[in-house]
Amino acid sequence: MLIVMSSTATADHVRGVCERVRELGLTPNEIPGAVRVAIGVTGNKGALDPALFNRLPGVQEAVAVSKPWKLVSREVKPDDTVIDVRGVKIGGGALVVMAGPCSVESREQVISTARHVREQGASILRGGAFKPRTSPYDFQGLREEGLALLAEARDATGMPIITEVKDTETLPAVAEVADILQIGARNMQNFSLLEAVGALGKPVMLKRGIASTVNEWLMAAEYIVSRGNYQVMLCERGIRTFETLTRNTLDLGIVPIVRGITHLPIVVDPSHGTGVARAVGPMTRAAAATGVDGIIVEVHPSPSKALSDGPQALTFEMFTELMGDVRKVAAALGQPLG
Amino acid sequence: MLIVMSSTATADHVRGVCERVRELGLTPNEIPGAVRVAIGVTGNKGALDPALFNRLPGVQEAVAVSKPWKLVSREVKPDDTVIDVRGVKIGGGALVVMAGPCSVESREQVISTARHVREQGASILRGGAFKPRTSPYDFQGLREEGLALLAEARDATGMPIITEVKDTETLPAVAEVADILQIGARNMQNFSLLEAVGALGKPVMLKRGIASTVNEWLMAAEYIVSRGNYQVMLCERGIRTFETLTRNTLDLGIVPIVRGITHLPIVVDPSHGTGVARAVGPMTRAAAATGVDGIIVEVHPSPSKALSDGPQALTFEMFTELMGDVRKVAAALGQPLG
Amino acid sequence: MLIVMSSTATADHVRGVCERVRELGLTPNEIPGAVRVAIGVTGNKGALDPALFNRLPGVQEAVAVSKPWKLVSREVKPDDTVIDVRGVKIGGGALVVMAGPCSVESREQVISTARHVREQGASILRGGAFKPRTSPYDFQGLREEGLALLAEARDATGMPIITEVKDTETLPAVAEVADILQIGARNMQNFSLLEAVGALGKPVMLKRGIASTVNEWLMAAEYIVSRGNYQVMLCERGIRTFETLTRNTLDLGIVPIVRGITHLPIVVDPSHGTGVARAVGPMTRAAAATGVDGIIVEVHPSPSKALSDGPQALTFEMFTELMGDVRKVAAALGQPLG
Amino acid sequence: MLIVMSSTATADHVRGVCERVRELGLTPNEIPGAVRVAIGVTGNKGALDPALFNRLPGVQEAVAVSKPWKLVSREVKPDDTVIDVRGVKIGGGALVVMAGPCSVESREQVISTARHVREQGASILRGGAFKPRTSPYDFQGLREEGLALLAEARDATGMPIITEVKDTETLPAVAEVADILQIGARNMQNFSLLEAVGALGKPVMLKRGIASTVNEWLMAAEYIVSRGNYQVMLCERGIRTFETLTRNTLDLGIVPIVRGITHLPIVVDPSHGTGVARAVGPMTRAAAATGVDGIIVEVHPSPSKALSDGPQALTFEMFTELMGDVRKVAAALGQPLG
Repeated sequence: MLIVMSSTATADHVRGVCERVRELGLTPNEIPGAVRVAIGVTGNKGALDPALFNRLPGVQEAVAVSKPWKLVSREVKPDDTVIDVRGVKIGGGALVVMAGPCSVESREQVISTARHVREQGASILRGGAFKPRTSPYDFQGLREEGLALLAEARDATGMPIITEVKDTETLPAVAEVADILQIGARNMQNFSLLEAVGALGKPVMLKRGIASTVNEWLMAAEYIVSRGNYQVMLCERGIRTFETLTRNTLDLGIVPIVRGITHLPIVVDPSHGTGVARAVGPMTRAAAATGVDGIIVEVHPSPSKALSDGPQALTFEMFTELMGDVRKVAAALGQPLG
Repeated sequence: MLIVMSSTATADHVRGVCERVRELGLTPNEIPGAVRVAIGVTGNKGALDPALFNRLPGVQEAVAVSKPWKLVSREVKPDDTVIDVRGVKIGGGALVVMAGPCSVESREQVISTARHVREQGASILRGGAFKPRTSPYDFQGLREEGLALLAEARDATGMPIITEVKDTETLPAVAEVADILQIGARNMQNFSLLEAVGALGKPVMLKRGIASTVNEWLMAAEYIVSRGNYQVMLCERGIRTFETLTRNTLDLGIVPIVRGITHLPIVVDPSHGTGVARAVGPMTRAAAATGVDGIIVEVHPSPSKALSDGPQALTFEMFTELMGDVRKVAAALGQPLG
Repeated sequence: MLIVMSSTATADHVRGVCERVRELGLTPNEIPGAVRVAIGVTGNKGALDPALFNRLPGVQEAVAVSKPWKLVSREVKPDDTVIDVRGVKIGGGALVVMAGPCSVESREQVISTARHVREQGASILRGGAFKPRTSPYDFQGLREEGLALLAEARDATGMPIITEVKDTETLPAVAEVADILQIGARNMQNFSLLEAVGALGKPVMLKRGIASTVNEWLMAAEYIVSRGNYQVMLCERGIRTFETLTRNTLDLGIVPIVRGITHLPIVVDPSHGTGVARAVGPMTRAAAATGVDGIIVEVHPSPSKALSDGPQALTFEMFTELMGDVRKVAAALGQPLG
Repeated sequence: MLIVMSSTATADHVRGVCERVRELGLTPNEIPGAVRVAIGVTGNKGALDPALFNRLPGVQEAVAVSKPWKLVSREVKPDDTVIDVRGVKIGGGALVVMAGPCSVESREQVISTARHVREQGASILRGGAFKPRTSPYDFQGLREEGLALLAEARDATGMPIITEVKDTETLPAVAEVADILQIGARNMQNFSLLEAVGALGKPVMLKRGIASTVNEWLMAAEYIVSRGNYQVMLCERGIRTFETLTRNTLDLGIVPIVRGITHLPIVVDPSHGTGVARAVGPMTRAAAATGVDGIIVEVHPSPSKALSDGPQALTFEMFTELMGDVRKVAAALGQPLG
């Protein structure tokens, strides 16, 4: 159930409706809009009768929501969500480029990379400090030291930081430094972590699980949003198929579909989506051509020496060339770089 | 084994090498090149000794080929194959747009569509006359009548025709009219049909099977090429995954990979690749941004009345808008429309 | 629409109903039953009114069929189809074991294998003469010579023969020798071939395509049955997934589901379903435990020297042990060996 | 690297070798065996020289381990791991049946189910108290109250309990009651949770992720074992494929393969593996026929009223019939019920 308030409704009207929802044993979720407020009702088992709310003061209309996800749906919030990260706006029409190394490995590595991607037009720095790895014997990241280096790189370049949070234990440490909390593909259905970042109120980038349907992905986003945090962007990063020449199959085809279903911004990760450096350029151009809100790519001063995911990292030269192309494609379609 | 002839080798030299190959019980395949001829040797069980050929007159070098596919490989033929279809060149650097209805349904339908797509910049007309359908009770195409209507549309617009050939029985009829023979996804490993089109010497578009690896796809192309027909273009049209919001998952990520492996032109089919009309535009732009040689899309005067695949067909208006966008993306990346 | 005739209906009644169906521009399909005949009506676009047939003489009831497949459905023919192959009954409650080499390679190989599997309790001999192969350079079978050797093996052992038919061109030659025509996974949607075997009236084993849904598989069977050939058995042989330790993923879970939907017999192929000899035994036992109608396994006198699929072939010793186990499992569940 | 101690090696010898390993900056992992101890060495980047350990007192042999997983490998520990859960032995040759409701819903529900499955031969009670659910609006389990009811059911029937642990926050509460900690498919790569249960030393059942390769699954188990907890059993519960008639595709074919690679016990879950009640019986029989160590099935007094996963739950009557069949199959293959 979605209760749409009239554009002249007062704060008292909104409060009154929320109270009524709570009296019915349900949860009201205030959804901010440009000209009016809406209130998503969650917690009901079956369908609700619109007559319960239709005549309350300030209510324009109460409408049933037909999808399993509610708060992330365009039915409930038709206008695009715009997330402001230290002045960089994601979802507001511009194409935001996030770039940096897979793992933070050293001061020199992360700061030189940050400077290079900044110069070329990236506006957010990516870098992993806590790394979930398939093998317990692989490099697990520089952890707190990595976070400190990311903060240094931010100071040096002014770029906001996105970094992965892998569990609730290290969430406080990561949240203190990160400007965007990244939830990795393997944690997409780690519901306790989703609830924890939902309660925090920081921007979150939710990667699609390696074999998750769009439906499950949106339900995972709903976990975060239903805790009150609307600053969620989705990230398509490739799904698992039978093809082995690429690490994953980047599912760009769902971008226009997801766009129609949800108001949340959409980011594409061609680095994990292909796993092969020479495919990253073409697929970044392709992602830009679909009109996404952001792109996140891995760049490393010396990919062959990277401690993780070297085969998919771009060199500085490759990134420079890529940014030239991305700029051209975005300009051709009338989208500014963010 | 690939025998590279020197640029000064004569026709007699080439003949001599071929004879030697046959004496060994193997098959020589002449591979035309811009400045020199190469001879692919097939039919051997194990590795061949280069010394068998290295010192024959006119031979520059005999090299082992490390891939299971041979004649379609860039190792064997480094320069791009360009296919000339009544003056339209596929693989020569330009972006060729093929458009038209899924099925030919009537004179009015196919000719009006041909005229519209022609005006908007398409250069090849697609349309199905013999339709392989999942159900025996579904519309199977107008068959010979459909071919005749396609020929009329060609006469009316000057556009070459691509149409599907579904079996060896109807191949002669189809080949008489078609300028490009399309092998559908379900027939990708119909080896008898591959051999038959290989023997014909007409341009062929080989669609990737719904669950075929790139390896299997290239081996299927090798079936055609090894019969002497080098005029083969590959068509990525989406693979089957667990996601159900799109009909298939368009695997654009393999485009740059395949490009590196083979000299054959690559075409993308965003209509079957998504199965959803409003995703076709974004994915066509995306395909253009990867730098493919061609795009094939379904257009229908009235999609809701189409006898097959209506949900993925573009209206004339949608196609007009799409061509505007495709032109911009291609121009931004320096690729002319073919 | 299914028209169920009463148990006392005469041949004239049946003829009258068929005539009425044809007058409506539709196709009547006579479906033989133990106590009554039914007539499946195909060719209609929308729903038919039962009143069109309900009151014709001899008609008990006309019922709408809700599934896309009709003639293969249990709704239309509730009792199991039993296929009699030279006295071996498939679908009649017993477990029929089909065994033999992947490819027929020599007289000695096929006859020694036939004798061994016969002794151990197999009742049908498998062996490929025309082999569809992924690579044009792989062994394509002994062709006509292979068929002749199969016929010799049948004479020597009395076992009926199952062998693959790969195209309509070689169908007459194959059909002359084969007792069961096998349609391979790659040809499951080769509709021209399906129609051709449908017209022949010989028993057919239809393998599931490597990425075919059960729905598509049953529609493929419908192609055969709708041409009048009800002697079709289905064969689950593994589907393609992301897992690479097995060649395919044997989808035993659909066996009880398919059993509920169709009256056609079901066979399982653990050799292709796993691709690994030491997994064939356990999966054959597993298939037997689900209560299938048949099992088809590859056996070779010397798997390491096999010209095709050696890694999945059982040695004579392995087959002997396997048959001991299969006998025990089937006996435990009350199923005799056929 | 694996250091195999001689059968006459003393505790001092073992201590000496471990010390040497630590001096090299590496980690020794003692692996208990029936007649000898082995020491797995982890933490090395490249290959180690066997000569470093070969001549230390008590060492029989130092061998390189070729697989990415080490401690879970049969190369390192050839004999089967047997896990003793309050006297029920998993991995010791018997077939252990675990049964119970998906979610604990009430005292009456869980105790009546426990009593029924106990009578029919199940030896471990399953039941979810903390439920990870795709939607934030679905029933999330009775939580602590559910654990208390499970403990009551154990007191009433004497059956050990297996229940899911969904995060590190609730792990202490769950571990206090559970006899086996179940890690669900969505948490298979929740590495922090794996490490936490690895440190606890309680039996763990690790479900395969919905799109995990066997390789990734074994690496996840390695996370647990490398923390010192060898009491890990693997559970195949179906993978995600394109087929939609079943909820998942139960991948029984990997059972014999996994059996050859690892010494850990293997359990199969036909309830999640099919998602369809009438497929659970046949697939449980099939699993038993492959010779697994355990089976886990969902049983509910009234499936249509279940708060979660009702469509796949067996009624009491279905479970009774199933156990009769399972007993027969296991007996036929010489495996006792555990």
